Amino acid sequence: MPETLLCPRNLAFELYEVLDAEGLTQRERFADHSRETFDAAIDTARSIAENLFAPHNRKADENEPIYKDGEAVLIPEVKPAVDAFIEAGFHNASRSFDDGGMQLPNLLSRACFAHFQSANIGTSSYPMLTMGASHLIEVFGSDEQKQRFLQPMLEGRFFGTMALTEPHAGSSLSDLRTRAEPAGDGSYRLKGNKIFISGGDHPLSENIVHMVLAKLPDAPPGVKGISLFIVPKFLVNDDGSLGKRNDVILAGLFHKMGWRGTTSTALNFGDNGNCVGYLVGEPHKGLSYMFQMMNDARIGVGMGAIMLGYAGYLYSLNYARERPQGRLPDGKNPASSQVPIIQHTDVKRMLLMQKAYVEGAFDLGLYAARIVDEEQTAGTEEERKSAHELLDLLTPIVKSWPSEYCLKANEMAIQILGGHGYTREYPVEQYYRDNRLNPIHEGTHGIQSLDLLARKLTQNGGAGLRQLLGLIQGTCKRAGEFSSLDALRQPLEQLLARLTEVTQALLGDLMAGKINQALANSALYLKVFGHAVIGWRWLEQAIRAEQGLAKGNEADVDFYRGKLQAARYFLTWEVPSCHHELDLLAGRDDTCLTMQEDWF
Amino acid sequence: MPETLLCPRNLAFELYEVLDAEGLTQRERFADHSRETFDAAIDTARSIAENLFAPHNRKADENEPIYKDGEAVLIPEVKPAVDAFIEAGFHNASRSFDDGGMQLPNLLSRACFAHFQSANIGTSSYPMLTMGASHLIEVFGSDEQKQRFLQPMLEGRFFGTMALTEPHAGSSLSDLRTRAEPAGDGSYRLKGNKIFISGGDHPLSENIVHMVLAKLPDAPPGVKGISLFIVPKFLVNDDGSLGKRNDVILAGLFHKMGWRGTTSTALNFGDNGNCVGYLVGEPHKGLSYMFQMMNDARIGVGMGAIMLGYAGYLYSLNYARERPQGRLPDGKNPASSQVPIIQHTDVKRMLLMQKAYVEGAFDLGLYAARIVDEEQTAGTEEERKSAHELLDLLTPIVKSWPSEYCLKANEMAIQILGGHGYTREYPVEQYYRDNRLNPIHEGTHGIQSLDLLARKLTQNGGAGLRQLLGLIQGTCKRAGEFSSLDALRQPLEQLLARLTEVTQALLGDLMAGKINQALANSALYLKVFGHAVIGWRWLEQAIRAEQGLAKGNEADVDFYRGKLQAARYFLTWEVPSCHHELDLLAGRDDTCLTMQEDWF
Repeated sequence: MPETLLCPRNLAFELYEVLDAEGLTQRERFADHSRETFDAAIDTARSIAENLFAPHNRKADENEPIYKDGEAVLIPEVKPAVDAFIEAGFHNASRSFDDGGMQLPNLLSRACFAHFQSANIGTSSYPMLTMGASHLIEVFGSDEQKQRFLQPMLEGRFFGTMALTEPHAGSSLSDLRTRAEPAGDGSYRLKGNKIFISGGDHPLSENIVHMVLAKLPDAPPGVKGISLFIVPKFLVNDDGSLGKRNDVILAGLFHKMGWRGTTSTALNFGDNGNCVGYLVGEPHKGLSYMFQMMNDARIGVGMGAIMLGYAGYLYSLNYARERPQGRLPDGKNPASSQVPIIQHTDVKRMLLMQKAYVEGAFDLGLYAARIVDEEQTAGTEEERKSAHELLDLLTPIVKSWPSEYCLKANEMAIQILGGHGYTREYPVEQYYRDNRLNPIHEGTHGIQSLDLLARKLTQNGGAGLRQLLGLIQGTCKRAGEFSSLDALRQPLEQLLARLTEVTQALLGDLMAGKINQALANSALYLKVFGHAVIGWRWLEQAIRAEQGLAKGNEADVDFYRGKLQAARYFLTWEVPSCHHELDLLAGRDDTCLTMQEDWF
Repeated sequence: MPETLLCPRNLAFELYEVLDAEGLTQRERFADHSRETFDAAIDTARSIAENLFAPHNRKADENEPIYKDGEAVLIPEVKPAVDAFIEAGFHNASRSFDDGGMQLPNLLSRACFAHFQSANIGTSSYPMLTMGASHLIEVFGSDEQKQRFLQPMLEGRFFGTMALTEPHAGSSLSDLRTRAEPAGDGSYRLKGNKIFISGGDHPLSENIVHMVLAKLPDAPPGVKGISLFIVPKFLVNDDGSLGKRNDVILAGLFHKMGWRGTTSTALNFGDNGNCVGYLVGEPHKGLSYMFQMMNDARIGVGMGAIMLGYAGYLYSLNYARERPQGRLPDGKNPASSQVPIIQHTDVKRMLLMQKAYVEGAFDLGLYAARIVDEEQTAGTEEERKSAHELLDLLTPIVKSWPSEYCLKANEMAIQILGGHGYTREYPVEQYYRDNRLNPIHEGTHGIQSLDLLARKLTQNGGAGLRQLLGLIQGTCKRAGEFSSLDALRQPLEQLLARLTEVTQALLGDLMAGKINQALANSALYLKVFGHAVIGWRWLEQAIRAEQGLAKGNEADVDFYRGKLQAARYFLTWEVPSCHHELDLLAGRDDTCLTMQEDWF
């Protein structure tokens, strides 16, 4: 059986050769863990993903949720899958043993979850959204809120959502109109409409806990006037039993191009004037709470994009090995047999591109998860702070780069399957449709580029940026010990030098108040920065591959050679392409800035 | 009402300012035509496309053809649309008055047809396929075949298909297995299975004429052993009335990601041993006949890709003008109103990119149609031959470049609409799904790259290439008269110089028998060559825009400024990016060539 979700050898490489997962078991929090318990968790995830998530991926696409009598109806296969996921404890994979969790490192819980995202992004979204919502209550909620709402979420009985977007306020959350009035009893009454709320209704849990952004009557304008509320679908009595239905109405379902297994809902809060909500934390701090959870959510989106890319890569790889078509250019004797298409150089190009994008992004996604572990469990406050700063900086890349390039990978997977890939009898077209959401939700591509350039570069006094540059230089230095890696290292060093220069220039513009000019080409900057990061991760992988080869294990030779060739592809085919964007950035090209609306 | 199909001012610019459509009326064949008759044809096309094609574009997507009792069932809106198309004579737009045609230049018939492709690519495919099939009989069929099959096609009573692909033979047509045995009466009996046959069954016409590639018993192996047959769905009696049903069975329908309005069929020929076919032309020449029609079909596919891009561009442009969201970076007062998103520089970038891709490709597509007119009606044999050589060379670009970049344009259109763009309530996601077929059918992207590099460059002793280089140099020279165009001209000249060098080197490799090495990076070559061609077309448009501006017509200023800015975008943001690919080509990079199957 060919692999379909991800390559286990590659995951082991990431965990144990690149990211030192075993080193984490030296820490007190993970002392009960070992490579064996890690692998056992992964095996369980893989088994549930293969047996309960993957089989209904297509069916869920073809039978999207239906609106019936005010509720969303799903195909019956979703609930047993999600139940098994919860039963195995993956919704609490990184939580403490005391909270009923597995107390796994974030690195491992991301690696486990990756299997579900690859198998069925739609079904995996329900627990993912719930994890995000429960995390908000965990960090910012009162003890009573934790008792009433978080506890049943940890038990898997309540699910959650994040309710931000409104019809007139998507990227611009400061324009939210949903209102919350104090009811006098400590609770609030909400009124407003939300759209694109994923998991906003479904029959998978006893209750749904909406984390809703809304404005209090005395709210200052803009982002500093937004508060966070818990708004349950059913009220919860003091004894934990379900009370009456809250005034949250499922106004309708959105019909999407892909990702159809997940309900995307329009929710009306307070149509009947009786929508009960509970303020989380302090007034007017809702958006800052959300943003503190944002890194996590955005890594989740990035990983989703990666795993869709991964699933498509593996499918098209297996297809290319088995599909005979045509002959090589220098052997066109029609009497000879057709060759498997994997032998055609242009097909190898499309596979190598996918491998470079998917495995490069996969490394970055897991690396980000590893930084979360540093942020939470590193030995010193200093180390934890550093980790946080690095993560802040990298998050827009972890979210946006896979969203763009793993979508491109899916485009190539279709191309390899040709006409077959364009039919719904093969899964690759669904991956492509599913993945097209990722550059849009959790902050669009454009928003990520502004977040990086206008905010993250200078956040924490630029500490994250300095740290990243130091890490990349460190990798280049270690790569310098392998003369075989010279041709891979040099393009990265050249890119880094120019990127540093251009970054300083753009930050100088920002400081000088030339804001529109500095931000005009943020999309180009995002590409270059992302390529530098992925190029760095590939050089790091190449070093580990050389080290692996040096061990002389015959069974691993092909794997490491593949790593080195993919690294070569990325560092010589992709990284140098950025000099063109750097030219435009360095020259403060104003083609887009000066384009006038009336000229279109 | 905003424009939805294409921009009429842009079409007028192409026809009358760039491509000299009026000049064609000086020729004998078009002497009865004038700008007025041209515009009248366009107005009619636009009206039918808007009123009968566009309204059911989404419905046809949501209600794809159904297989019922051995036939394909379509939604009822398709037939009236196609009937109106035929009634107006667009299936014979370029045919002679004597044949019931409009005797329009190819340039005009393409321009008319573009409206239908933009409005509804699925419904427009039925007449397009019929035009391809009828053209084959027109050129290569016997008088009797013309009488029996072509005449009813010209009358719009019979439709047609092109039946090439088989389950094991897509790109590699030499491996076809469908057989044709002489029946002794001058007809043949066919046996074989074809897949992905667009329009292979439908209720739109009295009969369907399949143009089928098959092998005769004495066929030599490979592409030189393929013959072309007419295989009607219903036999046709001597008096032209329909005879009995032929042994062509609709085995099933393919369910596609997009382009769902067009039936994609599996057809079984001769399951009951009685499939009657008629040899077209000489034995074993079928593939060469097909290839002589290929330019036309591939321009048609390119135009389809362009028009899907165009429809998405216009939709997202109108949306961006109307959708308020956020504020400009230097005016973030939350108390101020939100601005229409067209004011955000990154949105302008995505619109400008679409404009540059779509209008650049649109110019090329119509330019190719204009060359067809030269090929058919230029004054001298020499001119007609030159036109043919140029068209041969440009065809892989006209087919592939829009397939890649107008798909990218559709990706941007979705992005501009954000979450809304991802729902099926807006048309842009359908354009994206529809357009994803174009890099696959009528010769995949990979096939186009090999066709260009291994075949077209050297075809006719390289005359097409020399001609093209001369034309581009001529445009650069004329652009040199406008100092305002220096910054646009120079990147093209630099690209052209290096492209010429690299081309010579690769052809040298080919001549030296280093075939695999020379062709290894054909995809990169295709990109660079395509960008050079589109860059040339944009420089040509920029010259016309400068000339237009010089006329001082106030109402046209914005239009010409937009042209100049889009030209600037393409020539400074896109063209210089090719130097990276040229570096890889010049260095004969072998990353993909040396990748091994076992390393994946």
